[in-house]
Amino acid sequence: MNRLFSTIGLIARHSRPEVAQSLLQLAAHLDQQGLRVIIDRDTQQDPLLAASAYPQVERAQLGNCIDVAVVLGGDGTMLSVARHLAPHKVPLIGVNQGRLGFMTDIPLHEMQTTVSAILRGEHCPEERMLLSCTIVREGQQIAHSLALNDVVFSRGATGAMIEFEVFVDQQFVYSQRSDGLIVTTPTGSTAYSLAAGGPILHPTVPAIALVPICPQSLSNRPIAINDQSVVTVIMTRTQDARVHFDGQEHHTLQDLDQVVIQRYPNTMRFLHPLDYNYYDMLRHKLHWGERLL
Amino acid sequence: MNRLFSTIGLIARHSRPEVAQSLLQLAAHLDQQGLRVIIDRDTQQDPLLAASAYPQVERAQLGNCIDVAVVLGGDGTMLSVARHLAPHKVPLIGVNQGRLGFMTDIPLHEMQTTVSAILRGEHCPEERMLLSCTIVREGQQIAHSLALNDVVFSRGATGAMIEFEVFVDQQFVYSQRSDGLIVTTPTGSTAYSLAAGGPILHPTVPAIALVPICPQSLSNRPIAINDQSVVTVIMTRTQDARVHFDGQEHHTLQDLDQVVIQRYPNTMRFLHPLDYNYYDMLRHKLHWGERLL
Amino acid sequence: MNRLFSTIGLIARHSRPEVAQSLLQLAAHLDQQGLRVIIDRDTQQDPLLAASAYPQVERAQLGNCIDVAVVLGGDGTMLSVARHLAPHKVPLIGVNQGRLGFMTDIPLHEMQTTVSAILRGEHCPEERMLLSCTIVREGQQIAHSLALNDVVFSRGATGAMIEFEVFVDQQFVYSQRSDGLIVTTPTGSTAYSLAAGGPILHPTVPAIALVPICPQSLSNRPIAINDQSVVTVIMTRTQDARVHFDGQEHHTLQDLDQVVIQRYPNTMRFLHPLDYNYYDMLRHKLHWGERLL
Amino acid sequence: MNRLFSTIGLIARHSRPEVAQSLLQLAAHLDQQGLRVIIDRDTQQDPLLAASAYPQVERAQLGNCIDVAVVLGGDGTMLSVARHLAPHKVPLIGVNQGRLGFMTDIPLHEMQTTVSAILRGEHCPEERMLLSCTIVREGQQIAHSLALNDVVFSRGATGAMIEFEVFVDQQFVYSQRSDGLIVTTPTGSTAYSLAAGGPILHPTVPAIALVPICPQSLSNRPIAINDQSVVTVIMTRTQDARVHFDGQEHHTLQDLDQVVIQRYPNTMRFLHPLDYNYYDMLRHKLHWGERLL
Repeated sequence: MNRLFSTIGLIARHSRPEVAQSLLQLAAHLDQQGLRVIIDRDTQQDPLLAASAYPQVERAQLGNCIDVAVVLGGDGTMLSVARHLAPHKVPLIGVNQGRLGFMTDIPLHEMQTTVSAILRGEHCPEERMLLSCTIVREGQQIAHSLALNDVVFSRGATGAMIEFEVFVDQQFVYSQRSDGLIVTTPTGSTAYSLAAGGPILHPTVPAIALVPICPQSLSNRPIAINDQSVVTVIMTRTQDARVHFDGQEHHTLQDLDQVVIQRYPNTMRFLHPLDYNYYDMLRHKLHWGERLL
Repeated sequence: MNRLFSTIGLIARHSRPEVAQSLLQLAAHLDQQGLRVIIDRDTQQDPLLAASAYPQVERAQLGNCIDVAVVLGGDGTMLSVARHLAPHKVPLIGVNQGRLGFMTDIPLHEMQTTVSAILRGEHCPEERMLLSCTIVREGQQIAHSLALNDVVFSRGATGAMIEFEVFVDQQFVYSQRSDGLIVTTPTGSTAYSLAAGGPILHPTVPAIALVPICPQSLSNRPIAINDQSVVTVIMTRTQDARVHFDGQEHHTLQDLDQVVIQRYPNTMRFLHPLDYNYYDMLRHKLHWGERLL
Repeated sequence: MNRLFSTIGLIARHSRPEVAQSLLQLAAHLDQQGLRVIIDRDTQQDPLLAASAYPQVERAQLGNCIDVAVVLGGDGTMLSVARHLAPHKVPLIGVNQGRLGFMTDIPLHEMQTTVSAILRGEHCPEERMLLSCTIVREGQQIAHSLALNDVVFSRGATGAMIEFEVFVDQQFVYSQRSDGLIVTTPTGSTAYSLAAGGPILHPTVPAIALVPICPQSLSNRPIAINDQSVVTVIMTRTQDARVHFDGQEHHTLQDLDQVVIQRYPNTMRFLHPLDYNYYDMLRHKLHWGERLL
Repeated sequence: MNRLFSTIGLIARHSRPEVAQSLLQLAAHLDQQGLRVIIDRDTQQDPLLAASAYPQVERAQLGNCIDVAVVLGGDGTMLSVARHLAPHKVPLIGVNQGRLGFMTDIPLHEMQTTVSAILRGEHCPEERMLLSCTIVREGQQIAHSLALNDVVFSRGATGAMIEFEVFVDQQFVYSQRSDGLIVTTPTGSTAYSLAAGGPILHPTVPAIALVPICPQSLSNRPIAINDQSVVTVIMTRTQDARVHFDGQEHHTLQDLDQVVIQRYPNTMRFLHPLDYNYYDMLRHKLHWGERLL
């Protein structure tokens, strides 16, 4: 039999007992179909999963061992997994534990049927870009990370606004005094960026958006730039400024630190059910108007 | 001598006497360099120009006769000219009559030197996408037009909101009750769309933005879609609704009229001086923060 | 028996047969309690109502004849009635025909019980301010009207922005180029003004808000001024500009027309059921977050 | 001679040498007029001032000793002084050290003349409301402060949104997940609140505005409530949440902490020059359109 995938990674967040149960049922189901199942070790804290016979692998190593990952959780879990799997080009299938997520579009009660169908090739693939980010201090690279959603510059606990300068492809764009700046992918455009007044970017739009957070200058506006551009942010007045990658990795910034952001060469592939529709999901999540005709 | 351009069209808006004078000086200057000069007939209402010996051609025919057009005016004049020249792939050079425009970036007092340099090949070319728009009523195409900036749906004089449904690539996006909707190119993103809360799209971003005007549903937001998408807007409650192409061509809409909008195959080429910088222009026009470092 | 009200006016919009039926049941119910019932003549187009024995009075005359009005309809009907009854200080009771309105807070199926209770004095009164508006052309007052919601300046059908200057208490505030301007009461702050980005003003806040509609200047913002202030708007570039009072009365404006707006001395009194809660209504209408604790 | 004020407090921020010089000149000038001069001890760090013979008083004690205060600095200095002087009803005169502030409206080079005129009674008084704020933890009041501008709830350094419930006069308004919430006076409405999308409230509007900062729910909007209302904010998910009074006093909050905010009985009186005009100041600071007519 010609298979698309032979080894499946299973990943869950906060393994509540019923989720562990579901995960084991899915594992057994996939196992019966002759597929190899590997379970994310972070998931294993649940006693049920710990007692199971499936091999366990650290999340950081998962990418070397699996062909596709099934994620049970919310958008946050997807973000965390994506940053580990993107270098290995392992596609993701997202199952939500309750509420529909922007990325986790399969309801738990349909998981078994839908995941099986997707693995058989009955799916709608969707490529999502990531950002590659480097922090440079005094000429030295001090940190590097990926982001599927966004790179967020923010003030710290003192509540004082931060100041920085933004360059795109070495061209000066603006200096800004604000609560911060969101550099977002199309995927991140429906997350924090949207709350800050950023535009929604369809996943097929090859663009990066720069969205100021409460800028002091009232004429500042979100701007979308080409996905091939390199964004450099130079901190000019930090007072406890921070940068956050996907809301999961955090660094303190100092004056004159430079953060360089550009598109990561690999994309993250999501495998959706065949009836997936981006606009349906958006309309449902944002309570937009339904058809009248 | 190897020339990029041999016939130059000159176009001006509201030919004030001093503008006509400038135009004639430019014409003489180009003439001396052995270039052929043609003057837009709309421009000729000025007696000075009317009395000149340069051939005059209707704007609608200009595209057949010239290799490049020099436009003296504001962004509105550029829009008007662009829609006529786009089918002929004639590039544009924009000279402002006073205030820097988003598209007319050469100051009048530098016109002669800068235009000459540009025509010699010392320029920075920039491609701008246009929209191709069709109004369909009861299965019949009743109007067709191009837009460099935007297609704007708006309520008419009675002040009642309009209602419509939006589809992208045959997929339903939302129904909306609002003052209207702006479908904008990157070029139009710094015009009316910006006043309505739309994002700025850099000219190299291949996207079309849908920007609602005062939508009744508070969760509605601007969305940028892929430039290869087809947008269909179906009017469901019009009460004197209108559609405007670049704010220059206007049509009344009826219930169930469909307006189909997609990217036009040709791009409009702008020829900028070598020191042109999009972000400088933006920062200047929008009073954004200058460099501190 | 000591009565608060002896003559009750009944008013309905678009008398659908079932509404007429409800209205007649209410009329009979009030009649049995010894109250005098008068029906708004506009309502009488319905044959059922026309055939009834209750006296009929033109809306414009209603204020002279009744002590309180019960309105079946939406917020639009309330607006229309309010402008006629405000000079007579007749309070209003609002019954919605289906969807909860900001002003019509009694569901149709509870009408009989709730209206009876309210008429017995079991109510929560709420005072709402109105605006008094005058259009002055070449020194002559050419129109005068009241508004419970808002006075809206807007562009007409050509789609060109309008330009005007705003003064408060003879002090120049700003000149503006925009789609228009909303001068709103607290009552109107949850209507069109909200779609244009205006703030919500609680009904007890003695303020008038000036809310620009898509202003070209990006630093323009809504401003709330004291309810004792006089607002004067002078049109400087109209091109088919209009002014709308509560979206129900419309006037075309010319260059240099002045519109003078100030608080009307009388308030409109709404009689709500005892369990009325402004924030509950707001949260319900705007889908705000419910209690978690 | 009938005097309005006999003892004048002089207060400066960051006493740069030239400011100290100016302050001493003003002191000498007032002294010559027979007025008593007291200098804020915080100001005295400057050697010039330290060497002067004028009595020095701690800022916290100033309110007991002076009739009026002259503040040289920016809006931040005014805020700091206001919170100390409000309980003593000492009016303030604001002199800016360079850039016009919303509150410091006298340019340094006009200080001597203008302050003298104001002290002679040639002034335009303006009353500004303050907020009185209490933090309650497990039934105990753990902190209390005043705010002339705003009370700001914000997330801390981890970047996670905070969650809280808002009550007005014991009535539940909404639960919210956001970057934070600004509770602002009319004075604060032109400060941070404006950057977060809040409305401008004229100083004479007796209202408090609640302005969400990047709320996750897209339908949330700023709301202005009556100045007699009591606002209670209950933290439901803090993760390093903070509350800031005028950006100058900071407290960490825990889950279930309650912050109670209401109007402070005293107002702060600003003494402006006779030609002071609130709208002129606003228009100048926000670059709004000037008169055309």
